[in-house]
Amino acid sequence: MTSERKIYRNLVGVDEVLKIIESYRRLEPLGEEEVPLEESVGRVLSRNVYSLIDYPPYTRALVDGYAVLSSDLVGVYEDRPKTLKLVGKLSTGETRVPHISSGETVEVSTGAIVPYPADAVVPVEYTHASGDKVTFYRSVSHGENVDTAGSDIARGEVVAWKGELVTPLLVSSLAATGLKTVWVYRQARVGIIPTGNEIKYPGERLEYGQIYDSNSHMIYAFMKLLGAKPKIYERALDDPSQIGEYIDRALEENDVVVTIGGTSAGLEDYTYRAMSRLKPGIIIHGVREKPGRPLVVALHGDKILLGLPGFPMSCMQTVYLYLIPIVSKLQGLREHSIEAVRAELALPLRNEPGIRSFIPVILVQKYSGMKVFPLPGHSGRVSLISLFDGFAVLREDQEYLPAGSMVEVLLNPFSRRPEVNIIGSHDPLLQEVVSETLGASVRLVNVGSTGGLQAVKSGIADIAGSHLLDPATNEYNIPYVKSYGIDKVILIRGYLREQGLVYRKEKEPVQSISEVIDKGLSFVNRNPGSGTRVLIDKLLEDEAARRGITSSKLKAQLKGYTFEVKTHEAVAHIVASGVADVGVALRYFAIKYGLGFTSLAWERYDLIVSKESLQKPKVARLLERVKSLKGEDIEKFPGYRVDGETGKEYEF
Amino acid sequence: MTSERKIYRNLVGVDEVLKIIESYRRLEPLGEEEVPLEESVGRVLSRNVYSLIDYPPYTRALVDGYAVLSSDLVGVYEDRPKTLKLVGKLSTGETRVPHISSGETVEVSTGAIVPYPADAVVPVEYTHASGDKVTFYRSVSHGENVDTAGSDIARGEVVAWKGELVTPLLVSSLAATGLKTVWVYRQARVGIIPTGNEIKYPGERLEYGQIYDSNSHMIYAFMKLLGAKPKIYERALDDPSQIGEYIDRALEENDVVVTIGGTSAGLEDYTYRAMSRLKPGIIIHGVREKPGRPLVVALHGDKILLGLPGFPMSCMQTVYLYLIPIVSKLQGLREHSIEAVRAELALPLRNEPGIRSFIPVILVQKYSGMKVFPLPGHSGRVSLISLFDGFAVLREDQEYLPAGSMVEVLLNPFSRRPEVNIIGSHDPLLQEVVSETLGASVRLVNVGSTGGLQAVKSGIADIAGSHLLDPATNEYNIPYVKSYGIDKVILIRGYLREQGLVYRKEKEPVQSISEVIDKGLSFVNRNPGSGTRVLIDKLLEDEAARRGITSSKLKAQLKGYTFEVKTHEAVAHIVASGVADVGVALRYFAIKYGLGFTSLAWERYDLIVSKESLQKPKVARLLERVKSLKGEDIEKFPGYRVDGETGKEYEF
Repeated sequence: MTSERKIYRNLVGVDEVLKIIESYRRLEPLGEEEVPLEESVGRVLSRNVYSLIDYPPYTRALVDGYAVLSSDLVGVYEDRPKTLKLVGKLSTGETRVPHISSGETVEVSTGAIVPYPADAVVPVEYTHASGDKVTFYRSVSHGENVDTAGSDIARGEVVAWKGELVTPLLVSSLAATGLKTVWVYRQARVGIIPTGNEIKYPGERLEYGQIYDSNSHMIYAFMKLLGAKPKIYERALDDPSQIGEYIDRALEENDVVVTIGGTSAGLEDYTYRAMSRLKPGIIIHGVREKPGRPLVVALHGDKILLGLPGFPMSCMQTVYLYLIPIVSKLQGLREHSIEAVRAELALPLRNEPGIRSFIPVILVQKYSGMKVFPLPGHSGRVSLISLFDGFAVLREDQEYLPAGSMVEVLLNPFSRRPEVNIIGSHDPLLQEVVSETLGASVRLVNVGSTGGLQAVKSGIADIAGSHLLDPATNEYNIPYVKSYGIDKVILIRGYLREQGLVYRKEKEPVQSISEVIDKGLSFVNRNPGSGTRVLIDKLLEDEAARRGITSSKLKAQLKGYTFEVKTHEAVAHIVASGVADVGVALRYFAIKYGLGFTSLAWERYDLIVSKESLQKPKVARLLERVKSLKGEDIEKFPGYRVDGETGKEYEF
Repeated sequence: MTSERKIYRNLVGVDEVLKIIESYRRLEPLGEEEVPLEESVGRVLSRNVYSLIDYPPYTRALVDGYAVLSSDLVGVYEDRPKTLKLVGKLSTGETRVPHISSGETVEVSTGAIVPYPADAVVPVEYTHASGDKVTFYRSVSHGENVDTAGSDIARGEVVAWKGELVTPLLVSSLAATGLKTVWVYRQARVGIIPTGNEIKYPGERLEYGQIYDSNSHMIYAFMKLLGAKPKIYERALDDPSQIGEYIDRALEENDVVVTIGGTSAGLEDYTYRAMSRLKPGIIIHGVREKPGRPLVVALHGDKILLGLPGFPMSCMQTVYLYLIPIVSKLQGLREHSIEAVRAELALPLRNEPGIRSFIPVILVQKYSGMKVFPLPGHSGRVSLISLFDGFAVLREDQEYLPAGSMVEVLLNPFSRRPEVNIIGSHDPLLQEVVSETLGASVRLVNVGSTGGLQAVKSGIADIAGSHLLDPATNEYNIPYVKSYGIDKVILIRGYLREQGLVYRKEKEPVQSISEVIDKGLSFVNRNPGSGTRVLIDKLLEDEAARRGITSSKLKAQLKGYTFEVKTHEAVAHIVASGVADVGVALRYFAIKYGLGFTSLAWERYDLIVSKESLQKPKVARLLERVKSLKGEDIEKFPGYRVDGETGKEYEF
C-alpha cells in the first residue's frame, strides 16, 4: 500500500496528465477501415484521397447556347451579326459528339459536351436559329461559358488529406470524384462502468439513500457524438472483487474503460485496488485541480483505464479535459482544443494555491461587454450541468481574483446561452407563465429570494422572483430592494400565495408553531434569506415575546430549527416522507403532496426587473403576461390569488 | 404554360421564400414520439420535462466524516475539543438510518445519508475516534458539508423546456431525475431524387459526357446531422413521366422531397411540369439570388417539394438557405441562424443589381485583422465546396464593393480554416512534400503560377508555387516577382521539371511544334498565365521568326491553339483520351498517362513565400523540407531533378 499512498501524494498537474499517458503509450489512431461514403461523416480520413477522375470529366457548356470557335465571331455585334452552319445538337448526357470546324456551330444545353475544337459557347439569347443556320449577335472570348475537363480537379489531385474530418461538404467533393468508399480511422471502443452501492439506473425504483446514475448516459452520449463505440456496463457495487471482475471483462471488449464514482473511500479502497492488479497499472492518482482531483489513470497493456469522480460536475470536467481528448487522438482527430474566451468577472473568486480550479459560470452579454458570473453550489449539483455556459479557469498561481478582473472561460459547447435569466425564488405559477410565454429561451435558476435580488443587483439576472417580508413595515420586497441599494430596476407587483403549516394527514392537525414546540414535533426549517424563513422567525419572535423568553431560547426548543431546506417543495417532500413532522410551505404544495394545511399568511410574490433588460422583447412579453393575470388564469393553482395591486409598477 | 411562365418571371426575394411557404403551410413540428434517453441526443424535446424526484433524493454528506448537530459543537477549537457519543455508521447506499440526538454523532462517508436532525458533517481529519467516543477539534456551521434533499432540483421543477435540443449534458440532468425516456418531435423524412441523363452514382462507370452525382450524398449527410431521416432515390432521367412517377412515390414516403438538377432546360420542361400537376402545386419558381436562382418550391397537400439547382455550389447554397431551415422547423428546432461575421474585402466584388449574391470566399487572419478573399470560378466548381470558409453576401443594392470595404460573410460551419494556404501552380512533387510535412492543416489551391503570385501579393497565400519563364532574360519567376511589384516575400529556389510534347504512343512520335502545324495535328494549349503557356508562345514566336511570318499568323495555323486547359495533367488526359493529338506537359504526366514524350525544356518550379508567413511553424517546416531535397528524395518522380540552386533564398 505504501507505494500507492506515495503515488496518491504525488498529485500531477493538469497539463501533465496526457503527457504522462503518452510516455507509456502514444495516443495515436487504433487502425483503419474502409467504409461507404454515406457512413463516413464524422470519421477521420486515414489516407489522402486522390481524385479518380478529372472534374469536370469532360469539357462542358455552362449555359444553354451554341458552341463555336471564338475566332469565327471576332468583331461580331448586334449591328454586325454573323451566321454559322448548324451541324448538330448536344443535350446533356449525350455522348455522340458531332465534328465541328471553323464556320460551324453545335447547339448545346448546360452541362452538355462542348465538341473539340470549339472553345466558347454563345448564350441562346444572343442568337437566332432558322433551319441549319444560326445567326450570332455578339462575339465571345475563348473559354467563355466553357468548363474545361479537369479544370476544377485534375485526376490524381488530392481531394482530401489524411487526418481530415469527413463533413457533408467533403462528402460532396469525394462523391464528385467518383468515390464510393473511403478509408477512415477505426472507432475507439469505450466501456463505461458506474460503481457504488447507492447507484440506480434511470427507470429503476429508488430506495431511500440511493441516487440515479447520471454520468454513464452523459459519457455514452459524448462518445456517440465523437463517433466512438460506447457501451454501458452493469453497475459495480463497492466490492473489490466485483469491480475487478467487471474491469477485466470491459478491458477485453474495449480500447478505453471508464469507471465512475464510488465514494472517495471507494476510490481509495476498491476501484483503486482493482486497478493496481493491472500491468503497468496505475500511473496517475490525483490531479492538482478542482473539482476533478480524484482522477485515476491506469494502463493494462495498451488499454487505458480512467477512474472518474462521481459527482456530476467533477465527472464532466474530467470528461472534457481528459476522456474526450484521449478518445479523439485514438480516432485520429487532429489536436482539438476547447474554445476559450476572456471576460470580466462580476463577482470575486478564491482559489486554493497550487490548484487549478474549473468553476462553472454563466456568461451574460451586457452593454459593457461579456460578464462572468460564478454559479453557486458544489460539484454535486447536477442542475449546474444544464445551466453553465463554461468553466472559469483559476490558475495555480491565482489565489484571489477580485470582481472586475479578466478571467479565462472554457466554453461549454452545449450551452444554450438563453436570452433571458430569471433568478430567485422558485414559484410554480411563475414557472407556468414562463413556460407558456418564453419556453426554452429562458434560464430559470432557483436560489431563493435574496439570491435573486443579489443577482439583479450584480446584473446577472434580468428578472428576480422574490417574496421577502419586512417584519418592521409588514411590506413585501420593496424595503429589501431599498436596503440592498438596488437601483436601475422596476418592481412589478405579482400575486399572493397562501402559506401555512404542513403535516401528514394521518397525524392530528397542527394549528400553530407553538404547538409544534409544546408537542416536541420535529420541524423542517427554510434557508435564511427565504421569505418563508423571515415569516417563521417573525412567528417565533412573537411567540417568544408572548412567553416572555428570548427568541433564541425558543428556537433552541424547536426540534429541527437548524435543519434547513431551500424550497417550499422540499419542505413538503420531507414532511410527506416522514423525515420531519411539520414545516411551513405553500398550500399549493400541501395539496400536491397530500398534506394537511393550517393557513398562516398570504405572502406576495413580486418580480424585480433590471431596466436594461426591459429592452429585451421576451422580457417585455413575460411582464405583459404577468400584469394581465386574472383570477381564471390561476384557477388551477390553489392557494394563489391576484388583487388590485397585481401588475402595479414601482421604479427604483 | 402562360401562368407558369408568369411565375417564372416573378422571381421572389431571398427573405420571402420561407414566408411564402408559411403562407400556405406553417413550418411547425410534424408530431412527437417517446424515445429512450440514450437515443434522444440531437432531438428536440416536445414537452417540458419535470423532475420526477428531489435531487439529491435524500440529505447526503459531501465529505467523509461525522454527522452532528452543529449546536453541539459551538465554540469548539483544537485547544477546546469536545467528545460526542458514536451511535452508528452510515456508508453510501446504506438505508438503515440510526437515530441521533444532541450529544451524539454518526460516522458517514461521502454520499451517505445525513440522519435527521443532524445538520452538519465534520470532516474526518478534524476528529479522533476511539471506541464509541469521537473527539472533535473544530466547530461547524449548520448546513456545512451537507447536501439537503431537493436543494438542487425539487420534484416538479422544470429540468428542461419544450423546444430544447437534447445534448449530452442535458441527458445527464434528465438521467439524474430518473427519466428513462423523453418525448421529442418526430424526425422529418426527406426524399432525395437526383435528375438528369448525365448523372451517375459514385462507383458506377462514367461514360464520356457523364458526371457523378455529388449533391445527393451531401444532402443525405446534412439531413443525418440534423437528425432527420433522409433517403436517396434512384436517379430520374430527363423524362417528365419518369420524374413525375418518382416524385409521386417519394411524396408518399416523405415529408419533404428534394429534386436535384437536370439542366435548366430540364428544370423548365421536366421537373417543372411534373411539379405543376400537384395541388396546390408550384408556389415559387426562381429567386432573386446567385447562384441559387433556379430554385423551385411546390406543395402537395402538406408535403413540401424543393427543386434545387444541380451545380454543386448552387445546390449547397440553397441547402443552407432553405432546406436546412425548413427541416429544422419541421423538427421543432428553434430559429437557428447561420453564423455571420463582417470582415474586410481583399479584392473588389461586382454584383448584378436587384440580386443577392452569395460568393464563396476564403477567410485569412492577418495582423491587420480578418481578410476576405473571393474564390475564383463558377458554381460548377465542386472543389470550392471543401475550400470555402463562407459566403460573402452582396445585397440587392450593392452593385460594387471596392477592395477594403467591409462585407458580411455567412460562415461555413464545416470549414477547416487551415493554418497554411498554398496557392498557385499544381505540382505533384510539392503535393507529396506538403502531404508528408503538413497534411490536413494546409489548403492547397491550384490556380496557376500567375494566380499564385497575385495571391501572395494580395496576402491570401502564405506560399505560391510558380514556374514562369521570362523570355527576355530566360530566367524563371524572379522577373515576375519584380514586375508584379511583389515585396515582403522571399523566393526559395525549388527543383527542375522536364517538359515536352506529349502524344499517343500508337501514333508516330512528334518531334517539334512546327511538325504539329505542318501535319495539321490537333493541339491542346495551356491557359494564359501558366509557365507552360509562356514556353509554348516563345517556341511559336521563334518558329514564326524562322518562317518569316507573324506569330499570330502561325498561331492561327496551329489547330486548337485557343483550346486551353489549366494543368499539365489535363493536357495529358486530353491527349490520352484522343480529344487532341498533341500538347505540352511534364514528363511525369506523360509517363503517368502512358504517352510518348519529346523533351523541350527543363523548367524551374520555385516557392514564393510571404515574410509574415515565415512566423508560422508549419510554413517553416515545409520550407526546410524543400531546401533539403536530395536526388534520392525525388527518385519516384521521373522528370524531376534538383541542382545547386535548389534551396537558395532571394529576398524582395
